[in-house]
Amino acid sequence: MSISDALEREIGEARAQSASTLRPTVPALEEILFQPIPLLDHGFLRVIDYMGDDAAVVQAARVSYGRGTRKVSEDRGLIHYLMRHWHSTPFEMATIKFHVKLPIFVARQWIRHRTASVNEVSARYSVLDREFYVPAPDQLKAQSSINRQGRGEALGADEARQVMELLRADGERAHADYAWMLNEDDDGQRLDAARDGLARELARINLTLATYTQWYWKTDLHNLMSFLRLRADSHAQHEIRVYAEAMSAVMARWVPLTHEAFLEHRLGAATFSASALKALRRMVDGERVDEATSGLGAREWREMQAALRGE
Amino acid sequence: MSISDALEREIGEARAQSASTLRPTVPALEEILFQPIPLLDHGFLRVIDYMGDDAAVVQAARVSYGRGTRKVSEDRGLIHYLMRHWHSTPFEMATIKFHVKLPIFVARQWIRHRTASVNEVSARYSVLDREFYVPAPDQLKAQSSINRQGRGEALGADEARQVMELLRADGERAHADYAWMLNEDDDGQRLDAARDGLARELARINLTLATYTQWYWKTDLHNLMSFLRLRADSHAQHEIRVYAEAMSAVMARWVPLTHEAFLEHRLGAATFSASALKALRRMVDGERVDEATSGLGAREWREMQAALRGE
Amino acid sequence: MSISDALEREIGEARAQSASTLRPTVPALEEILFQPIPLLDHGFLRVIDYMGDDAAVVQAARVSYGRGTRKVSEDRGLIHYLMRHWHSTPFEMATIKFHVKLPIFVARQWIRHRTASVNEVSARYSVLDREFYVPAPDQLKAQSSINRQGRGEALGADEARQVMELLRADGERAHADYAWMLNEDDDGQRLDAARDGLARELARINLTLATYTQWYWKTDLHNLMSFLRLRADSHAQHEIRVYAEAMSAVMARWVPLTHEAFLEHRLGAATFSASALKALRRMVDGERVDEATSGLGAREWREMQAALRGE
Amino acid sequence: MSISDALEREIGEARAQSASTLRPTVPALEEILFQPIPLLDHGFLRVIDYMGDDAAVVQAARVSYGRGTRKVSEDRGLIHYLMRHWHSTPFEMATIKFHVKLPIFVARQWIRHRTASVNEVSARYSVLDREFYVPAPDQLKAQSSINRQGRGEALGADEARQVMELLRADGERAHADYAWMLNEDDDGQRLDAARDGLARELARINLTLATYTQWYWKTDLHNLMSFLRLRADSHAQHEIRVYAEAMSAVMARWVPLTHEAFLEHRLGAATFSASALKALRRMVDGERVDEATSGLGAREWREMQAALRGE
Repeated sequence: MSISDALEREIGEARAQSASTLRPTVPALEEILFQPIPLLDHGFLRVIDYMGDDAAVVQAARVSYGRGTRKVSEDRGLIHYLMRHWHSTPFEMATIKFHVKLPIFVARQWIRHRTASVNEVSARYSVLDREFYVPAPDQLKAQSSINRQGRGEALGADEARQVMELLRADGERAHADYAWMLNEDDDGQRLDAARDGLARELARINLTLATYTQWYWKTDLHNLMSFLRLRADSHAQHEIRVYAEAMSAVMARWVPLTHEAFLEHRLGAATFSASALKALRRMVDGERVDEATSGLGAREWREMQAALRGE
Repeated sequence: MSISDALEREIGEARAQSASTLRPTVPALEEILFQPIPLLDHGFLRVIDYMGDDAAVVQAARVSYGRGTRKVSEDRGLIHYLMRHWHSTPFEMATIKFHVKLPIFVARQWIRHRTASVNEVSARYSVLDREFYVPAPDQLKAQSSINRQGRGEALGADEARQVMELLRADGERAHADYAWMLNEDDDGQRLDAARDGLARELARINLTLATYTQWYWKTDLHNLMSFLRLRADSHAQHEIRVYAEAMSAVMARWVPLTHEAFLEHRLGAATFSASALKALRRMVDGERVDEATSGLGAREWREMQAALRGE
Repeated sequence: MSISDALEREIGEARAQSASTLRPTVPALEEILFQPIPLLDHGFLRVIDYMGDDAAVVQAARVSYGRGTRKVSEDRGLIHYLMRHWHSTPFEMATIKFHVKLPIFVARQWIRHRTASVNEVSARYSVLDREFYVPAPDQLKAQSSINRQGRGEALGADEARQVMELLRADGERAHADYAWMLNEDDDGQRLDAARDGLARELARINLTLATYTQWYWKTDLHNLMSFLRLRADSHAQHEIRVYAEAMSAVMARWVPLTHEAFLEHRLGAATFSASALKALRRMVDGERVDEATSGLGAREWREMQAALRGE
Repeated sequence: MSISDALEREIGEARAQSASTLRPTVPALEEILFQPIPLLDHGFLRVIDYMGDDAAVVQAARVSYGRGTRKVSEDRGLIHYLMRHWHSTPFEMATIKFHVKLPIFVARQWIRHRTASVNEVSARYSVLDREFYVPAPDQLKAQSSINRQGRGEALGADEARQVMELLRADGERAHADYAWMLNEDDDGQRLDAARDGLARELARINLTLATYTQWYWKTDLHNLMSFLRLRADSHAQHEIRVYAEAMSAVMARWVPLTHEAFLEHRLGAATFSASALKALRRMVDGERVDEATSGLGAREWREMQAALRGE
């Protein structure tokens, strides 16, 4: 993790100032507020602010139900009910804001989640740090032969070493040439008085997708779960999944009941199609069903079997 | 259905003018373009315009997969795959626009779907027609004792008759008093030269939620399905469900492959929680599981049983 | 204002419990947290929760500008700059949540602002209170003869009195018949043992648009300003403007610098078209320009004159 | 422009098939439908589909105004009125879909516009083409000394030549190493039977931000104008502005009245703050006002002067 001295000072100062508030407050989240969680080789994630808690979800749901059912449900049961029945608006009532440092190729996947607010470092204004992601050796894998978009087996040691060297060398060169074109060293000093230096918005086009960027990213609990459902999934690319898992752990501190319900009814759940339900009914009734007699395609059959095995 | 002469003329003219286009065109939808489908006692739904078809969904999905998989999938299989795996962006590439006449209480449920574009008649500018919804006698039911938000058994004949008379009388009076306050008859003529008439934006507050309004409503195929998933469901209020079912029939004309996949993987599908999957596994393995031993709450157990019975 | 005893107790309890937080906290907003601000005859607005402050806007903007400009701008100047140049994302970083009680016709205008989260009392679950809006006598005005959507001159005293009586009588009757159809008195007791009572979702269609509803409404600072720009404007209907003005006062407590910049660059500002700019240039150069020689239409000319007079 | 043979064939086929439709059709847009407009060194933009026209905007606006004003306004006047008064929903009723080939750094700016639908080539599935953007020599400029985010004066010939060579060499190397890591040549043939090849999702992190990507991008007319307002502006980075200007030309074919109103009331317009309006009033009244006596900051004063000079 690469945290600047300035940021470290800022965090120290922020954590030294507490205030009194009437707002719902979550001590387990306050404990880690502002603190960076190191991710990948230079990245991090930290919570900057939050609004609401499990009770805020319940409160909003109860407005909708009104007096009629106020006393009926316990909080935990109500949250599970809302999650199981895909109610979304009560979960929109809690909000969280992160500061994230992440490689650009991860940022490109992340930004596809549109229902969020973002302020990213602009490389038109600022010079980016000399930091780029190099995968750990155990992450260097071949294209998967089953999953058309993912990684399969580890590369041989030799090929892995060569790839690693190449990624490092290309990354170094891209950043060195970026600095040369800008005509600036890492401290912002002009390198060569005889040259003007290229505009920042152009010099940065030479950087690779492994370069780190930073942003503030704010979303509500409902949209955070949509993000986690896709990005904490086993089909997500490893590098974004690392961030999603850190966010899932943050979510468990923040809204433990909602997190429990999310694992139960989203991440650990499975949806079966009308045809899959028919096959399942026969299986529950004691019939021996296999792929050929299931009425399902090969892939859907495999997916249903996996879901039943708890995978 | 109450269609003004002006609208009928407009429809006739619009259907008389055809043009040549290079755009994807769906003959089965062109057949009913502009034609009102009567709904409830005075409402209707009609398709005003559309963009894209099943092939537009496939085309967008293939951009994402690129050359690598261009020939592999057949269209139908690809659409089912996208639906099963909750891919949403390719379905956003097709768009449809409706003109709808509907009671205000239905409009209030409908507008909660935020990812759509709406232009509604403004009762600040215009005088609303003297039309309000009165339920058909077979729709007059008591509060459900099971489902806290729905209807249960039919009212007794006497009570039904009294309710009907009351709804009719109150609706008539609200509209008559609206006209009196506006000081305008149905043709816009001043009723009483000695009075000014109340501003439209105020007079309308006296109308009931059964009053009909109209709007143009435009959404994409993905968000149309989100709408249908909630509003064509058996838990939706009857009156909005009538509209959702008409829209579902329109969708079947427009994008038949997507509609088939939608029935299979959304409307006819069921999601089982992590705990429900565990219980299901035991059942498939031949174990006898009942509510008490299932590890599920009473309500979730009932819902799982219903899903397995295909309800 | 009609606040139930239950709500009053809830507010007392909430204001009695303070906690320590590291989050940005705004004492001027904490002062009024949870407290209802009475509006119209039975409505209110109260702040339930908030996240961020003026500094959160600045912080997000500085992430985008990066190190390069960190020290250059003062907070106030930066916020004015962001507002003048229509930067929106930094203002999305602060969030506020309101509990609002409001007439349904106001709710229908309000809900058109789609970028917000809402949980409304559901009249399918709950019985609505016997409360409906009756305008104050000085609000009873005729249709404006200039502005096609607004109010003009006050009604004559006689007509005003008749309108008032009529609104009151119709409102009373609608609520009485609602209770009769539900077969429930105000305390939820069955009125007539021989009747079933009509389902809530149907009985409510007889209520008028003046009936009060409630919701939790959450939005970010950017979208709050979009709301205020339209609804605190002189063309907005009086009844929603009353809410918008209360929210504007809340905003002034919460983010005083942003509020100042909002008045300066949005509410108090004016946009001139390319043609208006040409006319303005001639005027500044000392030429005498009138409507006929301005190159503008009559209405745009009037609007430009009004803007120059500070109206 | 680099268009594959497959795409060229597809375009030929698509343009050969016309159909009859009742939908609003725009002959000037049909003329260029599917045809790529070459942009930058390898990019393009082409219209894939559209829905609606100027009349669709008018039609939606008239629903809101209702009968009351149906005959009053002419279409052109109404569209100008809607634009001047920031009405947005009628412009949401028309939709357009583009296929765009663009450098990744341009895509990163573009995607910040969230109210749109996107399907992008996935470099997890597909191998990207060996194409990267190299600026034309006259675009190689130094950082601006006035505008903190833009370009200023042209680089000296020598420095420009060196920068160009460096961008070209780094781009070539990044793509060559990408192919080597994938262990694939440009035709997808394995380069070295002894190596596995790195997974696509990892190999691509070595590509630079100048690499071309492709996407389908769909938005409505209102959001298209928000895009153009920012990206066809003189402060936008040259490379995205090139795309925005091509889209603006497409818009002029598609909805000529709306385009005219957009130039008049958005691109060619200026907004003056409350303080600027005060200064302006004094100037119009014949007073001699300069920066010191204007009550404005230096930057706002400069911007107001520029707006009055028509810049």
